[in-house]
Amino acid sequence: MATKPYFKERNGPAPLAGRLVRRVRLEEVDPLGIMWHGRYPSYLEDGREELGRAFGFGYLAFKESGVALPIRTLHFDYLSPLRYAEDATVETLLHWHEGARLNIEYNLYDGAGQLACRAYSVQMMVNLSGQVLLESPPFFRAVQEHWRGGSLATTVR
Amino acid sequence: MATKPYFKERNGPAPLAGRLVRRVRLEEVDPLGIMWHGRYPSYLEDGREELGRAFGFGYLAFKESGVALPIRTLHFDYLSPLRYAEDATVETLLHWHEGARLNIEYNLYDGAGQLACRAYSVQMMVNLSGQVLLESPPFFRAVQEHWRGGSLATTVR
Amino acid sequence: MATKPYFKERNGPAPLAGRLVRRVRLEEVDPLGIMWHGRYPSYLEDGREELGRAFGFGYLAFKESGVALPIRTLHFDYLSPLRYAEDATVETLLHWHEGARLNIEYNLYDGAGQLACRAYSVQMMVNLSGQVLLESPPFFRAVQEHWRGGSLATTVR
Amino acid sequence: MATKPYFKERNGPAPLAGRLVRRVRLEEVDPLGIMWHGRYPSYLEDGREELGRAFGFGYLAFKESGVALPIRTLHFDYLSPLRYAEDATVETLLHWHEGARLNIEYNLYDGAGQLACRAYSVQMMVNLSGQVLLESPPFFRAVQEHWRGGSLATTVR
Repeated sequence: MATKPYFKERNGPAPLAGRLVRRVRLEEVDPLGIMWHGRYPSYLEDGREELGRAFGFGYLAFKESGVALPIRTLHFDYLSPLRYAEDATVETLLHWHEGARLNIEYNLYDGAGQLACRAYSVQMMVNLSGQVLLESPPFFRAVQEHWRGGSLATTVR
Repeated sequence: MATKPYFKERNGPAPLAGRLVRRVRLEEVDPLGIMWHGRYPSYLEDGREELGRAFGFGYLAFKESGVALPIRTLHFDYLSPLRYAEDATVETLLHWHEGARLNIEYNLYDGAGQLACRAYSVQMMVNLSGQVLLESPPFFRAVQEHWRGGSLATTVR
Repeated sequence: MATKPYFKERNGPAPLAGRLVRRVRLEEVDPLGIMWHGRYPSYLEDGREELGRAFGFGYLAFKESGVALPIRTLHFDYLSPLRYAEDATVETLLHWHEGARLNIEYNLYDGAGQLACRAYSVQMMVNLSGQVLLESPPFFRAVQEHWRGGSLATTVR
Repeated sequence: MATKPYFKERNGPAPLAGRLVRRVRLEEVDPLGIMWHGRYPSYLEDGREELGRAFGFGYLAFKESGVALPIRTLHFDYLSPLRYAEDATVETLLHWHEGARLNIEYNLYDGAGQLACRAYSVQMMVNLSGQVLLESPPFFRAVQEHWRGGSLATTVR
């Protein structure tokens, strides 16, 4: 199956990529023996947190700058099920965007390495009063500068 | 805000509509004081179940016909937050489609009646071996016939 | 089965009682077809909230007095399973206690009215700094006075 | 604080012990900034699964013998809160018992190593018809024999 891209950034650097493994819990599986579709947001959040920690723009880094990142759009394309005790891999790709937002693509692979779910999220940056920001906080613009310059390394792993 | 339609059925009858109210639980609210975005699939499922029961095509009706309805696509547009103890209203609209699938649109309103989230889901019908069906089970085709004929009434309320 | 009491208050008035019905969701059911044991705290919290609202000592009433009610002890005796789409009834009994605490007993009945789970919780009252209070806030002492005097009516229903 | 024992086995070998670390998710934290009390059953289940896998008596091993292990009693003593992004440690102790049951004690430590919650569970062994077994399946009796003989090693780690 040819997958169409969720984001079409131009003139930007390649996405920042993260990856983590999470074992499917019994409690996440429904009576049909497959992971209930409503559990996937948790897997995406794990991937997103891991990515943020790795590159220095985690939830707490934004919070210290007085910025929250509410999800505006969330989309899932479920391809095949995940099952109990399977080691699912969450691949996370932050796509380049000039604005004060995060465009993230996710690929979930099952224990056999097959693509089981594709997803994306769009987050807007807002201040503590909930107003949408037009500009990223300075720490994140520094991250972006290194990213575009090709000198951004993972800070944690 | 003008909202663009998720589904563009032509020549079909108006959507089947359901509605339920669910109060936001403390456990559903995150440290920012708003309902965590990953709780919404549960609200959609409540709406979907209510709609199915009301019109005679619930989870168990399909199951008796040997048909399961896995979610293939799930999409959320979050507009404004929901808060603790708020009575959220889930409006559910099944859009007409000839094929063996369910295209459902959701509107979530907050306690003040403001649109807080729009969403949609696409479900494919599969048999117990997981094979995608090309045709709906007879009981659902009967529902569709009454729907198109304008004689489908809610069976439960 | 004779059930031994969880709380043995003496010289106090009869417990305050609440009751609500909640239908078991598909997502709450595990691959064995029964509600996963870890979902029950949510049912207890629903019962507790209903009781508090009914008698005027809900979460928000305590919060306005600067008092939080963390759970200190939580205990479940599971007797028989709950199943998908079953209407479970949560019976909630606040037992009399002189101190700054809430001792609550819970009985969960399945759709056929059979006792499926017994449980209890102990909550201590703490101030916003997390310090345990030795005395209930004035509004709750007023509730207790009416309770002991036999003149406490449900304020919401 | 002196803690009273939950189980008082006599003449048996020392408990089998497991340990795992799990980071507290944002979605697990309530508006008060602490992990909601109803999330702890999931931490216990993680601990229990790890213990079973380590010593060869996991969920699937029992299932292959036609045995399920429903929770009959679950008890929590919450001592201090867990917070977002904290690395909680779940220590699991299977206590010796001759019968067809599992008596497990849990100690949860916060990121600073302080005991945050004590808990225990009692599981009965039942067959696929839900009848309580009087005797453990052979594979588990073999585990018990090695355990009592002092020759039981972790099989996975």
